[in-house]
Amino acid sequence: MLLGKIIGTVVATRKEPELSGLRMMLVQELNSSFEAAGKIIVAVDAVGAGQGEVVLFASGSSARQTAITNNRPVDHVIMAVVDLVTTGGETRYDKSTDAG
Amino acid sequence: MLLGKIIGTVVATRKEPELSGLRMMLVQELNSSFEAAGKIIVAVDAVGAGQGEVVLFASGSSARQTAITNNRPVDHVIMAVVDLVTTGGETRYDKSTDAG
Amino acid sequence: MLLGKIIGTVVATRKEPELSGLRMMLVQELNSSFEAAGKIIVAVDAVGAGQGEVVLFASGSSARQTAITNNRPVDHVIMAVVDLVTTGGETRYDKSTDAG
Amino acid sequence: MLLGKIIGTVVATRKEPELSGLRMMLVQELNSSFEAAGKIIVAVDAVGAGQGEVVLFASGSSARQTAITNNRPVDHVIMAVVDLVTTGGETRYDKSTDAG
Amino acid sequence: MLLGKIIGTVVATRKEPELSGLRMMLVQELNSSFEAAGKIIVAVDAVGAGQGEVVLFASGSSARQTAITNNRPVDHVIMAVVDLVTTGGETRYDKSTDAG
Repeated sequence: MLLGKIIGTVVATRKEPELSGLRMMLVQELNSSFEAAGKIIVAVDAVGAGQGEVVLFASGSSARQTAITNNRPVDHVIMAVVDLVTTGGETRYDKSTDAG
Repeated sequence: MLLGKIIGTVVATRKEPELSGLRMMLVQELNSSFEAAGKIIVAVDAVGAGQGEVVLFASGSSARQTAITNNRPVDHVIMAVVDLVTTGGETRYDKSTDAG
Repeated sequence: MLLGKIIGTVVATRKEPELSGLRMMLVQELNSSFEAAGKIIVAVDAVGAGQGEVVLFASGSSARQTAITNNRPVDHVIMAVVDLVTTGGETRYDKSTDAG
Repeated sequence: MLLGKIIGTVVATRKEPELSGLRMMLVQELNSSFEAAGKIIVAVDAVGAGQGEVVLFASGSSARQTAITNNRPVDHVIMAVVDLVTTGGETRYDKSTDAG
Repeated sequence: MLLGKIIGTVVATRKEPELSGLRMMLVQELNSSFEAAGKIIVAVDAVGAGQGEVVLFASGSSARQTAITNNRPVDHVIMAVVDLVTTGGETRYDKSTDAG
């Protein structure tokens, strides 16, 4: 999985029928300083994540291993909202103190 | 999925039989400024997308999860035409006002 | 799929038995100017492509969705020989006038 | 597989139910000098690896080929703790003398 | 598949049980000048390859399509030892004259 931050949303009305009802979020990968400065991808939200949250997303066939993405043409899924990232003993991200 | 813009088409008569009848579009990835300036890939069109449209495409095995690409040697599929991209409250792309 | 140009061949006698009889071609990805200047990969030829031809190749599990690559340890397959690439109304590659 | 070093952990309480109980580690890829200076990914730990250890991780669908990741939305798994890396006759990494 | 050169080995005693007995080789990708100067990956050896040999390796789910890697958490497999690489009429690599 990769760490990313939800920076927006994508709306598409003309689409594969299997995508109906799925929320498509714009997610920017975090860089090695844990800042949203990397590649931007579009992921289906499986956990009720919202704008500004730091999340984990899975890619490829693993993105289809959730109830809502199973057998659908989806290659990125948000499968967790991150509470805390630590490296060594140091806190690098803490959702409870994050301004979003 | 990734955001891309349809910039052209590819014609190939000598090909795997399973590819017959599939439309192959040239898609350029959008960069983090939402401009068509990234890598160029070739995707099968599953939604009737056309020249100049901003689309979502799925890659890898997920690209085979549509009726027309199932069990075919296809690794990129256009599965949605994008209407609107917003980051925070700001509109970054709006199909209704896009010059194409 | 990605656009590439066949720039050579690879010969290997000591290999997985399932690879016997497959032609392995050296393919260089085209860049955004449609020149063979990108990464070099090795792909199995499923369509009788030859030296100097511009082709489409599929990667990953999609590369196994042909009769000759099914269930084999192959992750790139040439599945089409390209005749024409156009962007907007402009011809970017035309096999009939290509020097190869 | 890729070589990486465990540099931290990720905690997420709101997540896909299938992820319950899995330890999610922050892993930084080793560069060609075998230093933890590459991309940071999040991998599920399948072997009881700990902070500072050099590990092997598998990506994509292969990351689901363990008892704890089977059918789960996981695309990176730590499947080995590295003892020794040698290039030619030279030792490049030795766990027994590594400061962690 | 990609061209790589075997530059070393990896030893790991604490690992997924399914990996027992598999030889894990350090492989460096060849660049477009056919020199071992690219990314370093770890691949399971399926063909008895040795130090200094130029090989082909397959990645992703295709890496599991051999008898020894089937259903195992392996995402890179060496499936051929390269004898000859030619581009146009020119020999770029010849195992019989390679110093290793």
